[in-house]
Amino acid sequence: MPHDCTFLADTLDEEQVSLGDDDRDSHAGDWGTPEEDRVRPDAVCWPESTADVSAVLAAANDRDVPVTPYAAGTGIEGNALPARGGVSMDLTRMDRVLDVRPEDFQIDVEPGVLGGTLNDAVAEHGLFLPPLPQSADISTIGGMIATDASGAKTVKYGEVHDWVLELEAVLADGTVIETGSKAKKTSSGYNLKDVLVGSEGTLGVVTRATFELERQPEQIRGGRAVFATLDDAATAIAATMQAGCDVATIELLDQVSTKIADAYSGTDLPDAPTVFLEFHANHGIDAEIEACREIFDEHGVERFEMAAGTEMDELWAARRDLANALLAYDPPRRPAKPGDVTVPISQYPDLVRYAKTLGEEHVLDVPCFGHAGDGNVHYNVLVDPNDPEELEAGREISDAVVERAIEMGGTSTGEHGVGRGKRSYMIAEHGEGTVDAMRAIKRTLDPNATLNPGKIFPAADDERL
Amino acid sequence: MPHDCTFLADTLDEEQVSLGDDDRDSHAGDWGTPEEDRVRPDAVCWPESTADVSAVLAAANDRDVPVTPYAAGTGIEGNALPARGGVSMDLTRMDRVLDVRPEDFQIDVEPGVLGGTLNDAVAEHGLFLPPLPQSADISTIGGMIATDASGAKTVKYGEVHDWVLELEAVLADGTVIETGSKAKKTSSGYNLKDVLVGSEGTLGVVTRATFELERQPEQIRGGRAVFATLDDAATAIAATMQAGCDVATIELLDQVSTKIADAYSGTDLPDAPTVFLEFHANHGIDAEIEACREIFDEHGVERFEMAAGTEMDELWAARRDLANALLAYDPPRRPAKPGDVTVPISQYPDLVRYAKTLGEEHVLDVPCFGHAGDGNVHYNVLVDPNDPEELEAGREISDAVVERAIEMGGTSTGEHGVGRGKRSYMIAEHGEGTVDAMRAIKRTLDPNATLNPGKIFPAADDERL
Repeated sequence: MPHDCTFLADTLDEEQVSLGDDDRDSHAGDWGTPEEDRVRPDAVCWPESTADVSAVLAAANDRDVPVTPYAAGTGIEGNALPARGGVSMDLTRMDRVLDVRPEDFQIDVEPGVLGGTLNDAVAEHGLFLPPLPQSADISTIGGMIATDASGAKTVKYGEVHDWVLELEAVLADGTVIETGSKAKKTSSGYNLKDVLVGSEGTLGVVTRATFELERQPEQIRGGRAVFATLDDAATAIAATMQAGCDVATIELLDQVSTKIADAYSGTDLPDAPTVFLEFHANHGIDAEIEACREIFDEHGVERFEMAAGTEMDELWAARRDLANALLAYDPPRRPAKPGDVTVPISQYPDLVRYAKTLGEEHVLDVPCFGHAGDGNVHYNVLVDPNDPEELEAGREISDAVVERAIEMGGTSTGEHGVGRGKRSYMIAEHGEGTVDAMRAIKRTLDPNATLNPGKIFPAADDERL
Repeated sequence: MPHDCTFLADTLDEEQVSLGDDDRDSHAGDWGTPEEDRVRPDAVCWPESTADVSAVLAAANDRDVPVTPYAAGTGIEGNALPARGGVSMDLTRMDRVLDVRPEDFQIDVEPGVLGGTLNDAVAEHGLFLPPLPQSADISTIGGMIATDASGAKTVKYGEVHDWVLELEAVLADGTVIETGSKAKKTSSGYNLKDVLVGSEGTLGVVTRATFELERQPEQIRGGRAVFATLDDAATAIAATMQAGCDVATIELLDQVSTKIADAYSGTDLPDAPTVFLEFHANHGIDAEIEACREIFDEHGVERFEMAAGTEMDELWAARRDLANALLAYDPPRRPAKPGDVTVPISQYPDLVRYAKTLGEEHVLDVPCFGHAGDGNVHYNVLVDPNDPEELEAGREISDAVVERAIEMGGTSTGEHGVGRGKRSYMIAEHGEGTVDAMRAIKRTLDPNATLNPGKIFPAADDERL
């Protein structure tokens, strides 16, 4: 039953609204949505200001028309899929850098600004925004805020929410609010800012964000380490973190991930578990590198090579392209329910071992890579979607890995968000009472379930959320 | 109209409940509550477990009896004052360190554990919890979570909420929830953890907290710098932060604050604006100190002295005792509406100048000190509470400083919380719509306004909150 979206014509200019099939198709899912799960919105709109966002939401909310915010579409969990149709609100035209205040290490941006664009805007001041994901050059700040994204440098610098100082957002009924402060710290009232961050557009649409920035380090060194076994590599990484070693990036690629990267990116990675490293410091970077090398030595590292100059750039590009490389590796096989579970670092080697063992039991490739220093595993079970048995095995393995991560005190999603894909784990991870409290907040801020319905909350619980 | 609290006898053991005058008196306010503002609770109870907290809240909520959590009573804004009587719930008997996991840099504690006790428990592992306030040795972790406290090392390490991984909390109706994750990062559902942190016991009572810890730095150096004028000192501090200098602590004491410290602590501070410094590093600490010294030189520093060994300990103790020293300095004068406004660092010199100028205009001492690197000013207008004119001038100056801080993009409270003292600034700081959204969350999670009523929200708005 399509929603009547003709009200958009009264709210926005003609070129800001489309009911056309092409536009509806291109907003029917995100990067991670399988063909069969796509849902076309009834209309797409492109607000160009906070006032536009407010007007559309107020009108849609009055008419019981769902609105699902959409940005670059680089999400993995169906976060931006318009599950109940209605309006897909595309924020990519709100892409202005509004103000840079280098004297306060701050920048104000609209949500459609790409992560790379933001960093370009502050580079001349010797500043950068550290927590951005691998997809920063094609993903928007708004999307990163929506999922509380993080990335390769999170191990040293934290997640997106750690760097958001202030947000302007529009609630479901069109009310514009401002949360947080431009002060570095505040204890003033409820921290609504950090509820909005990571709420995946279900509580409000962010229309402006103020970020704190970091000074670029005076010393940066990259390198890689090669291990004989995956277990050695995972254990060495855990030991490095437990020693308090100050790494800016510590990424694991298992053996099959190095093959997949080579096949796609034309690199020549060793056919062995490999750790990518980056160190940031203002002083004494060599001492930190040596501390890491010693720990890796104790865990049987075979090669520990620090790069000179830009040698690592090609490898980082290959790492960044891994998500696409997975699709191209062994067609028609593709990842079944990929994930980004995260566990306390002491549990990390066991979790990696568990995922790999499940793969061996089912004779399926389960490439594991990711932001290892955070205890974050990106696992992907490669299956032929046309082979029901493989597909089922892929789902089973994925479920088992998430369940094990939760048992270990970890989380079903370290950075991609819940979207549609991880809803079924919410009760197991948080408990009924906690999910009820989340639901209460959703209902009080968005009583009509206007904003991005069908996400985060377990599917069967309440058809309206 | 007193509340009938006899239900407590059915809920807890005899030695966990008191209706006695002494106990009620000792829970009638906090450190910052003037005599005339104190409110005695009808009863005091001491839960010893999560189950106790849950049972008391469920019973009180059923009976419309307010419950105000109480810890060490070291708050400054009346945060723990039982504004509508009822039960003062004293958490100090829940003071167990539950688990230390050095392999994950984590500790689980009950809310009544003192900050100093926590740090003692992890010191043997070479770890510490960095964001604690000056009062850490006499304040509880639960109180620090309630206000999202911060302290002298926040400039490098962040606030309390940055270090809380997971919280167990009891909601107003007795429901026990768990929020956050033991994973270093998560994007799973709404961030209820960071709504509870800083909510001053108005949304739930925290019964267990998991903190992330930091490795103790290999190098620590303390020192002090003396300036001819306050403006030089404030400008030098701002310039140091703007240069990205890696200080672990950078505290300002204006001239009158050094006098007050000397009078109380018997120290021999220079009769001049003084900056206390601490540097933390694993390598190259001297280079960082030199970078700071150069900037201070450019801003006319008169003396820049780094301490050897424990020379700074006495000075830090004097800094820690400043709050008590203010009371003893010029009796019967005492601070009128003290504050902890915080602004972007570029505004910091102007804010300090503004506060001092107002003091000069009214011929009143306005000692200013605090966590300068965060843009945080602790201002105190010293007035004779029996002199209506001075008292009024003190309130005027305090109001003007807060209003100016908000105009500068800052916050009415950087670390003490809103409590009763800063409620009147909430609309000016956040706007009506944002305060409405906070109120909606309060009403949905605590519909009977059982938990710590009369705090955070503007007084006249809703007698029930």
